[in-house]
Amino acid sequence: MTKTPLDVINAADRDAFLAALGTVFEHSPWVAEAVMAQRPFASLAALAGAMEAALRAAAGEQQLALLQAHPDLAGAAARAGTLTQFSTAEQQAAGLVNLSAADSARFVKLNAAYRARFGFPFIVCARRHAKDSILRAFERRLGNDADAERAAALDEVLRIARLRLDGLVAAPDRLKVHGRLSTHVLDTARGRPAGGMALELAQLAADGTRLTLVRTTTNADGRTDAPLIADRPLPIATYELVFDVAGYFAAAGVPLADPPFIAQVPLRFAIAEPEGHYHVPLLVSPWSYSTYRGS
Amino acid sequence: MTKTPLDVINAADRDAFLAALGTVFEHSPWVAEAVMAQRPFASLAALAGAMEAALRAAAGEQQLALLQAHPDLAGAAARAGTLTQFSTAEQQAAGLVNLSAADSARFVKLNAAYRARFGFPFIVCARRHAKDSILRAFERRLGNDADAERAAALDEVLRIARLRLDGLVAAPDRLKVHGRLSTHVLDTARGRPAGGMALELAQLAADGTRLTLVRTTTNADGRTDAPLIADRPLPIATYELVFDVAGYFAAAGVPLADPPFIAQVPLRFAIAEPEGHYHVPLLVSPWSYSTYRGS
Amino acid sequence: MTKTPLDVINAADRDAFLAALGTVFEHSPWVAEAVMAQRPFASLAALAGAMEAALRAAAGEQQLALLQAHPDLAGAAARAGTLTQFSTAEQQAAGLVNLSAADSARFVKLNAAYRARFGFPFIVCARRHAKDSILRAFERRLGNDADAERAAALDEVLRIARLRLDGLVAAPDRLKVHGRLSTHVLDTARGRPAGGMALELAQLAADGTRLTLVRTTTNADGRTDAPLIADRPLPIATYELVFDVAGYFAAAGVPLADPPFIAQVPLRFAIAEPEGHYHVPLLVSPWSYSTYRGS
Amino acid sequence: MTKTPLDVINAADRDAFLAALGTVFEHSPWVAEAVMAQRPFASLAALAGAMEAALRAAAGEQQLALLQAHPDLAGAAARAGTLTQFSTAEQQAAGLVNLSAADSARFVKLNAAYRARFGFPFIVCARRHAKDSILRAFERRLGNDADAERAAALDEVLRIARLRLDGLVAAPDRLKVHGRLSTHVLDTARGRPAGGMALELAQLAADGTRLTLVRTTTNADGRTDAPLIADRPLPIATYELVFDVAGYFAAAGVPLADPPFIAQVPLRFAIAEPEGHYHVPLLVSPWSYSTYRGS
Repeated sequence: MTKTPLDVINAADRDAFLAALGTVFEHSPWVAEAVMAQRPFASLAALAGAMEAALRAAAGEQQLALLQAHPDLAGAAARAGTLTQFSTAEQQAAGLVNLSAADSARFVKLNAAYRARFGFPFIVCARRHAKDSILRAFERRLGNDADAERAAALDEVLRIARLRLDGLVAAPDRLKVHGRLSTHVLDTARGRPAGGMALELAQLAADGTRLTLVRTTTNADGRTDAPLIADRPLPIATYELVFDVAGYFAAAGVPLADPPFIAQVPLRFAIAEPEGHYHVPLLVSPWSYSTYRGS
Repeated sequence: MTKTPLDVINAADRDAFLAALGTVFEHSPWVAEAVMAQRPFASLAALAGAMEAALRAAAGEQQLALLQAHPDLAGAAARAGTLTQFSTAEQQAAGLVNLSAADSARFVKLNAAYRARFGFPFIVCARRHAKDSILRAFERRLGNDADAERAAALDEVLRIARLRLDGLVAAPDRLKVHGRLSTHVLDTARGRPAGGMALELAQLAADGTRLTLVRTTTNADGRTDAPLIADRPLPIATYELVFDVAGYFAAAGVPLADPPFIAQVPLRFAIAEPEGHYHVPLLVSPWSYSTYRGS
Repeated sequence: MTKTPLDVINAADRDAFLAALGTVFEHSPWVAEAVMAQRPFASLAALAGAMEAALRAAAGEQQLALLQAHPDLAGAAARAGTLTQFSTAEQQAAGLVNLSAADSARFVKLNAAYRARFGFPFIVCARRHAKDSILRAFERRLGNDADAERAAALDEVLRIARLRLDGLVAAPDRLKVHGRLSTHVLDTARGRPAGGMALELAQLAADGTRLTLVRTTTNADGRTDAPLIADRPLPIATYELVFDVAGYFAAAGVPLADPPFIAQVPLRFAIAEPEGHYHVPLLVSPWSYSTYRGS
Repeated sequence: MTKTPLDVINAADRDAFLAALGTVFEHSPWVAEAVMAQRPFASLAALAGAMEAALRAAAGEQQLALLQAHPDLAGAAARAGTLTQFSTAEQQAAGLVNLSAADSARFVKLNAAYRARFGFPFIVCARRHAKDSILRAFERRLGNDADAERAAALDEVLRIARLRLDGLVAAPDRLKVHGRLSTHVLDTARGRPAGGMALELAQLAADGTRLTLVRTTTNADGRTDAPLIADRPLPIATYELVFDVAGYFAAAGVPLADPPFIAQVPLRFAIAEPEGHYHVPLLVSPWSYSTYRGS
């Protein structure tokens, strides 16, 4: 998607301004409209802050209407293909589109319970999650009281809006809406970076499914040329990095047991902060390995 | 099985002696008979050594007849239930009894090729293996020349015999036919053994099957009350130890991320020496872990 | 010292009983006398418990007299050689005998301040300490109020008594008055215990002095044949284990940089629990190492 | 020292050219003169390569005269203060200026033996060394035959020249004559960089002297704001990094033993490649630590 430069937005007439920013809040261009007069914005952060302030200053009914304008997660609109373009992409990214019948039924039931209790659909910033963490959040938030849940829903709306805004507008600054996952392999038997080691990253779900996200090989510095995940929030989920350690040492001519004591090393970890930097290195010899959350 | 004391064997008449030891070599009581006159044996090692010497001193045709007296691995006799009691138990231990149709077909084909090439059935000490390592050995040994393979087959016959002998005879000494697998969990965040941590040990096969062997919990010293595997050869195979690290730290009141960065730690390793001692410890904090082959 | 069996003590007449146990409390055989009638004692723990109860039940003036019967630490009696045999050995063990002039002056000053404040000499179980930790305890306890310090002094008297008692009496049980320090070296480059590695243990003092306690070599299992310290309390102090890693790897033919990246590895740690078990292993390759408090 | 830009050198007349580069080889401006006509040089590497080629192409007697023009290491000229400016700085950097009488006598003896054997003074690129490694090299090279040693001496002359050249000339490229030493501290108890930890770097000599090179504190990312050593060759020597681990954890409110099990962590390592990058991280909890050569 081509981004619109911030200075173009600052200079746009009403129609162009709303065309650019009217979709930041779901079916609610009024939020953009409310900040139009505050232009020019010196930074993307200033624009985002103004929109947040406008939403928080709005009357309770107007906020409620905005919440009610959201679609059900994994709901009828998703199945019918009538979501907004943004919602479609967001729900796809979290794996909510081709659900099993059992999962669909679970969402239908949770959505119904939630609407009955709170009067608006369950809203979560899907790009920050995977299916399991959405279901956990869903069940946890069903236990909230009305005020706490209204606040939680607005927080999610603002997370969604900041992500959309960061993707729509080109500015000198960026909103802190993305995370980064990286790795690094050190060969502790030979005291050097482990270059040329194959590895893969998979996302694991509670039902046992395993979604391979990346297959790559370390470079001469023992790192991957690109971060494993970047330029997006890191979905809250469990991951497994699997390294072909025996392949690496065999290629280097290091003597190994037959079969090698350590062949495929799986490092299993979970991400809890979608905007964080997770560095998950592997220090490895043919007979030992370590990992830790690095920086 | 009740063991017969070595001094009883030393004092037995011919019938009792052969009843006790005639099954050590498959359908070949002549090996036992050949050493009867050398009694008394001062140790089990001396008895085993005498039997090995008798086998190695026998004429080539007699050795060949002994090799030919073995059943096919995973063969018709196994399916028909007509194996000797020992062979049945040995083939069961290696998981060769309830094979899939594809695996059965693979064994049939390999057995036929092997018999055609060498004139006797493929013999391997099944208790030292799992299905994958037997198949690897099968294919590797099919490439041997006749002399090398005759020697390899005799070596396996002797491994089988020593294991049977160690199980049949009670003596002050033991033959070195068993291995040991153990673990130990240290809590590096708090500087103490990690007691009360749930863990499981599984054997992994190349086809993706996962056979859980042990589920247990660490004791106050961070060890398991009994070794994970002991009193048998360690099957050559890939294993995974999985530790419930987050459960342990949560129970101890240590603050964790939500979800915890480290929850289930899998340690995947392979055993190459069935008679070895494999100690596979876990040093773990909520944010880091290490493992190595210990002692 | 030859120990007297507990059953001999249980059967002894008054003179023999006091000859055996009258020195357990410094110049205060009345504590032993107070428990004589409670014989027979089923265990050393029961005897120790009875003596403790007798001391705690005694009148305040009697307890005070017992405290006052102790010599000054590193005081005039030590210099003059007029300490009891026990006190001499205890003060020697903590390195309080050949003090520098500056240290002597410091003790003189602290002893004077302490006596002036509390009316009895500073008592500490010297076998559980080194000079630095005694000085730290001295200064900390000078800040106590009278009741807290009377209690602290009695606790130390009982620690001294239990150590003396454990050394005097042979019984089926032992008092838990000893600690243990051990190590273990694993070669993570080759996946085996590091046997034949030279190492030394030194005690470090705040003034920079370094007292070598042990020089030894690891055995085939990577351990030392005897614990580094055992059969005594572990003095509260800072220690350094130094391992000749480069010598080990060079002897094994493992390629090393010139000079080796890792040659002498110092592991510096402190002991805080004299009755504890401290296991301080080294996991080492030519390019990496780890240590931790093990068990 | 202000560097002369390469394009100024390319355009300089003879006098200016020799003023700029005549000192690159000790008392031997003829090497610079020999390459003057090859100008312009497109890069510093090209200029260095031309000078090396000129030296290697020179007649044996001319090379010998150049070797003989060097001063003795730690010799009479150093003591008298009559070295060239470059030699003074180089010998100072390696700690050869204020030697003890014993060390001076050792150098006098080695210099005499070397000159008697080879007919020119011992030459070594002192910036790449510390006193101990120079003495080791001195004794090793005394065992060379004449041809091997002539080659070794020329190699050192070229190392010296490249370092001088890199310091004299500003160009878009740099010669690879510098190394880098860095560290990084990770808190494995809390899964974050260890910021605010005091540390020092010292160089250790075989005679027990300890030269503190850097005292600093880690930044928020657990690193030091500047590399520990950079912009110079890393002297071949043994080093110790000492980290105030207990101070860091105490400031963070992490419970510690009294005294802390781990207080000051010394990491002792040697540098063998002066132009290399040595990254020596510390992964540490209150009860465990690891280090390794990183990248």
